Amino acid sequence: MSKLAIRAFSVSLDGYGAGPAQSLDNPLGVGGMALHEWAFGTRTFKKLFGEDGGSAGVDDDFAARSFANIGAWILGRNMFGPIRGDWPNENWKGWWGDNPPYHCPVFVLTHYPRASTVMEGGTTFHFVTDGIHAALERAREAAQGRDVRLGGGVATLRQYLQAGLVDEMHLAVAPIFLGAGEHLFAGIDLPKLGFQRSAHVSTPNATHIVLARQSN
Amino acid sequence: MSKLAIRAFSVSLDGYGAGPAQSLDNPLGVGGMALHEWAFGTRTFKKLFGEDGGSAGVDDDFAARSFANIGAWILGRNMFGPIRGDWPNENWKGWWGDNPPYHCPVFVLTHYPRASTVMEGGTTFHFVTDGIHAALERAREAAQGRDVRLGGGVATLRQYLQAGLVDEMHLAVAPIFLGAGEHLFAGIDLPKLGFQRSAHVSTPNATHIVLARQSN
Repeated sequence: MSKLAIRAFSVSLDGYGAGPAQSLDNPLGVGGMALHEWAFGTRTFKKLFGEDGGSAGVDDDFAARSFANIGAWILGRNMFGPIRGDWPNENWKGWWGDNPPYHCPVFVLTHYPRASTVMEGGTTFHFVTDGIHAALERAREAAQGRDVRLGGGVATLRQYLQAGLVDEMHLAVAPIFLGAGEHLFAGIDLPKLGFQRSAHVSTPNATHIVLARQSN
Repeated sequence: MSKLAIRAFSVSLDGYGAGPAQSLDNPLGVGGMALHEWAFGTRTFKKLFGEDGGSAGVDDDFAARSFANIGAWILGRNMFGPIRGDWPNENWKGWWGDNPPYHCPVFVLTHYPRASTVMEGGTTFHFVTDGIHAALERAREAAQGRDVRLGGGVATLRQYLQAGLVDEMHLAVAPIFLGAGEHLFAGIDLPKLGFQRSAHVSTPNATHIVLARQSN
């Protein structure tokens, strides 16, 4: 069966997956960009945004693997954009320009209905108003046997983790302390949820940890 | 002036400095031993407990450095032993046998007075009942210009951090999730306290981070 996977999700050493005070200017929160430094320089990320060059190696391998065999994505609304409440119109189409780096169906969790938005390059944003289980069901169906990637943000990851729905996780722990922001692990007991470490590799930029949940 | 330093303090990726349910059988809490695996195999730790062999390299360098230029230690009572409340007698002399690995004055924070205990090898345990500032003052005096090392446990580190008294910190982040236990960072904003990263090195066993507080 297709897995629900968290991949290439960056957290600080003090457990924050985003900085405080997210806004249009600071979509990752204040200081949040530093979480992702391990990824920005990789060949995979450069290519994603149409640039040449970038580094190969362990960080790039994890970045590349994070996109492998993904048939659909699930995003929280805050990751899709800064708009809260009812959609004033359908002008906001995500942070990523006309050709977003998903290239498959993306299911956005929201309380406010909106028609699907077809983008260039194979990405379609669907808006799901009936909760995380419904979004997962629709994403699984759309993925046609491939895996579903849970993109974020932190609140969405926490909901799926607490519901016991996440099958595997690759976290990139950046060697920084944010001090404040959105905490990924507070009150979440990963071993108790059945997660065991299946791999870990450190680079100068991040400690990569892969966790898999034992099915019982 | 002599610094107050936290060194070689192990934390999990989810921020725990000890496992849950500390007891006489599990002084580091359930699962807590795994935090320190990076250290146990090093030449420095082997030697500390009278054994030969052990590994050299980055982990060992950090282990060795953690004992360098230390003139006194401060420990919380829970790190000294499992006894709570009044001391029934003076039989408990720490977890470390007759010749503890301190070899200098050690100031133990407690609410219950007790006479100092002289051990083999230069270690003397002093019991301080008038708080963390008094303990630091006495430790600084005893250290005679060398640094004071804050040994733990988590609650004691948190008190000194929140009081703004810690000058530098070397944390060894073990690539494990404990899921529960004593959280080192919850509610503690290291950047706000003035800490900046001065070094970080990863090994297969730990990510070593050194933080120094800017004096302002």
